[in-house]
Amino acid sequence: MALSKDRLIGRKAILLLLSEDPDMQLNQLKENNWKGCIGKVGSMDAHKVVAAIETAAKKNGIIESTIYRESHALYHAIMEALHGVTRGQVQLGSVLRTVGLSFAVLRGNPYDKEQEGDWIAVSLYGTIGAPVKGSEHETIGLGINHI
Amino acid sequence: MALSKDRLIGRKAILLLLSEDPDMQLNQLKENNWKGCIGKVGSMDAHKVVAAIETAAKKNGIIESTIYRESHALYHAIMEALHGVTRGQVQLGSVLRTVGLSFAVLRGNPYDKEQEGDWIAVSLYGTIGAPVKGSEHETIGLGINHI
Amino acid sequence: MALSKDRLIGRKAILLLLSEDPDMQLNQLKENNWKGCIGKVGSMDAHKVVAAIETAAKKNGIIESTIYRESHALYHAIMEALHGVTRGQVQLGSVLRTVGLSFAVLRGNPYDKEQEGDWIAVSLYGTIGAPVKGSEHETIGLGINHI
Amino acid sequence: MALSKDRLIGRKAILLLLSEDPDMQLNQLKENNWKGCIGKVGSMDAHKVVAAIETAAKKNGIIESTIYRESHALYHAIMEALHGVTRGQVQLGSVLRTVGLSFAVLRGNPYDKEQEGDWIAVSLYGTIGAPVKGSEHETIGLGINHI
Amino acid sequence: MALSKDRLIGRKAILLLLSEDPDMQLNQLKENNWKGCIGKVGSMDAHKVVAAIETAAKKNGIIESTIYRESHALYHAIMEALHGVTRGQVQLGSVLRTVGLSFAVLRGNPYDKEQEGDWIAVSLYGTIGAPVKGSEHETIGLGINHI
Amino acid sequence: MALSKDRLIGRKAILLLLSEDPDMQLNQLKENNWKGCIGKVGSMDAHKVVAAIETAAKKNGIIESTIYRESHALYHAIMEALHGVTRGQVQLGSVLRTVGLSFAVLRGNPYDKEQEGDWIAVSLYGTIGAPVKGSEHETIGLGINHI
Repeated sequence: MALSKDRLIGRKAILLLLSEDPDMQLNQLKENNWKGCIGKVGSMDAHKVVAAIETAAKKNGIIESTIYRESHALYHAIMEALHGVTRGQVQLGSVLRTVGLSFAVLRGNPYDKEQEGDWIAVSLYGTIGAPVKGSEHETIGLGINHI
Repeated sequence: MALSKDRLIGRKAILLLLSEDPDMQLNQLKENNWKGCIGKVGSMDAHKVVAAIETAAKKNGIIESTIYRESHALYHAIMEALHGVTRGQVQLGSVLRTVGLSFAVLRGNPYDKEQEGDWIAVSLYGTIGAPVKGSEHETIGLGINHI
Repeated sequence: MALSKDRLIGRKAILLLLSEDPDMQLNQLKENNWKGCIGKVGSMDAHKVVAAIETAAKKNGIIESTIYRESHALYHAIMEALHGVTRGQVQLGSVLRTVGLSFAVLRGNPYDKEQEGDWIAVSLYGTIGAPVKGSEHETIGLGINHI
Repeated sequence: MALSKDRLIGRKAILLLLSEDPDMQLNQLKENNWKGCIGKVGSMDAHKVVAAIETAAKKNGIIESTIYRESHALYHAIMEALHGVTRGQVQLGSVLRTVGLSFAVLRGNPYDKEQEGDWIAVSLYGTIGAPVKGSEHETIGLGINHI
Repeated sequence: MALSKDRLIGRKAILLLLSEDPDMQLNQLKENNWKGCIGKVGSMDAHKVVAAIETAAKKNGIIESTIYRESHALYHAIMEALHGVTRGQVQLGSVLRTVGLSFAVLRGNPYDKEQEGDWIAVSLYGTIGAPVKGSEHETIGLGINHI
Repeated sequence: MALSKDRLIGRKAILLLLSEDPDMQLNQLKENNWKGCIGKVGSMDAHKVVAAIETAAKKNGIIESTIYRESHALYHAIMEALHGVTRGQVQLGSVLRTVGLSFAVLRGNPYDKEQEGDWIAVSLYGTIGAPVKGSEHETIGLGINHI
């Protein structure tokens, strides 16, 4: 039942965002049988961040959009990642702040045991702050769910 | 007022945790005039996680323990990092879950402008789950504050 | 001071929503000296859910709209019921989700003792999910307050 | 992708708790290919409520205890149900209140489509209040997750 | 339905705590037909803060302890005041912090209209911080409820 | 490291709001080397409350608007004060309520020790309630941060 050291889905999802060359790293993951995608979104609306990630995940075939259980798994992973980014209230513009984020969605089995099946990780990294250039600091979030 | 690309304190604090050789990387940061420390803590009590980080930061001279404003800055950075780890309620054993975490505390000025002074980053990475071996997944958190 | 088994206001308010024939059941409650009303509301705006329930409760004379203490009691019961529905952040469209809800408001004394006076129960039952047909699951909430 | 009117898992899980004869109703559900169990727990410790439900679900074979994804699904359903019960902070004794709850765990596919697979519903109904007999009112919670 | 300028219950409850001579001010309020009491509590346990206020309010006859609706009104006013003190999570020792508080409970009708009946205000003022002398700053909270 | 009895920044910031003659009291504080300002804001949008306070603080030179660390300190003090005002979810119009607030921002060193440097206090006092005249009660909030 243990996590596999070589298959730490959260670690991989975060390193993807912090990498110098995310595209190359994503390709490497795909060669190792991971499904994944990366993207960027900047907004004062939390719902636009959610929508950007959902759209990317569906468009890149990370989740099967006609099956609700897959969207449900992804949605909760996104919300959990947003907790790390917002640290208290999952609110942006309504409390006068904005984000500029890179995101990654990764899908695969991080456990030794085959029966654990697929899990999904959503990672977010970027800046949060006032809607004034430079008035911001870094922020990160990670959500992990079974799918 | 902008963040300096070479001095992204949050990114550095997280990479420190995900590194193959954290000690070497920490030494490298110190040579570049960052203050920092790393450590590990596993507990079902959130207050023990807070205490472990505070103790390490004071013992390693990251913050000046006789000045309350420094402890205050660190405390809020820890709490913000814990939001990412717990994603909803900053509670562990009281909702029957436990964490095994690495942590890093980093101090320096991540901005181009000298007047921005020192900031502090607290990063957390590890596992969260039921108090049963293997019943856990990864988790991450980052808190950043001016000091 | 104990709750009366025959007068469990929360249980009654929920069964009203889950009933095959809510109107008949509501009439029965009214014959037994309960005040109550039922309604439906679908929205991505939490404030529209609040408004729909408040309007129904005032229009049906469940609360006296010229007395603030009655509105205050109802408002907090609604907010508590919304916690059950939203499970974390009392937000809908701002985190890209929508609800389709039935609601009931019931007023009466659920306790053996007369001095306990009137209490108000707000129950909510329906679906919550993405703004995509079928991408939703059920949800319930109950708020109870003295009035 | 729509919810099946005859297979509303949340509605069934709640009616189970509010029924006059829960055991009979549970048997009927089992005959219709649902997995489920019911139980009771009273405590000032939220973690004891979590543990009681997890133990019952494992003992009754509702979830497979050797597969973490099943425990993970159940845990989050329990936590969501506790949000409805606690309405704000998932805390009991630490804010001087106690609960006396019935619980039900139900497992099956509530959707028309077979691919949606199994979902799990955790329902809670009982009283919450001061640790003084009679100083309490009713409370309800429902958590639903894919499994 | 408006608040009466001379009878602002929240303002009075806070000024009571900040006064140079709280006892004299409390007596003056009592002469003007307010019920009220003041007290002090220091703890790392939120439930001890709740208990201290409830005990003082009952002992001083501010609420009628045999009627649950009165305890219920007071409890929610206390919890709301604690939100102001804790600003995020209603937790003290579990996140390694402690409080030293003065509290006041005041009861009366702050509205022009007689039908608004009695309301209750709970005010808290003091310090919050690390369990180290001097490592603390001020904090305040106010909860108001109909009774 | 102790708080100085004569320099309790939170107490001063609140008394400023509750004073009969806030302008005079503010002038007195300025003569004693405090920086401060007062203002009023009424809104259903939390972000307008944040903006009003930030604008006043910058315009009156309480914080240096070209240095992000100062805005950062102020922002978190405002958010903490809003927790006291909203008591649960930092939301106004989105849950159908509105505020009418006075605010004060005060800056100075409340500690005996010079090294503690400047701290900032944001106090809020006014009413919160339904967007219907008179359907409201008082509310208060205080946020304190090092700057």
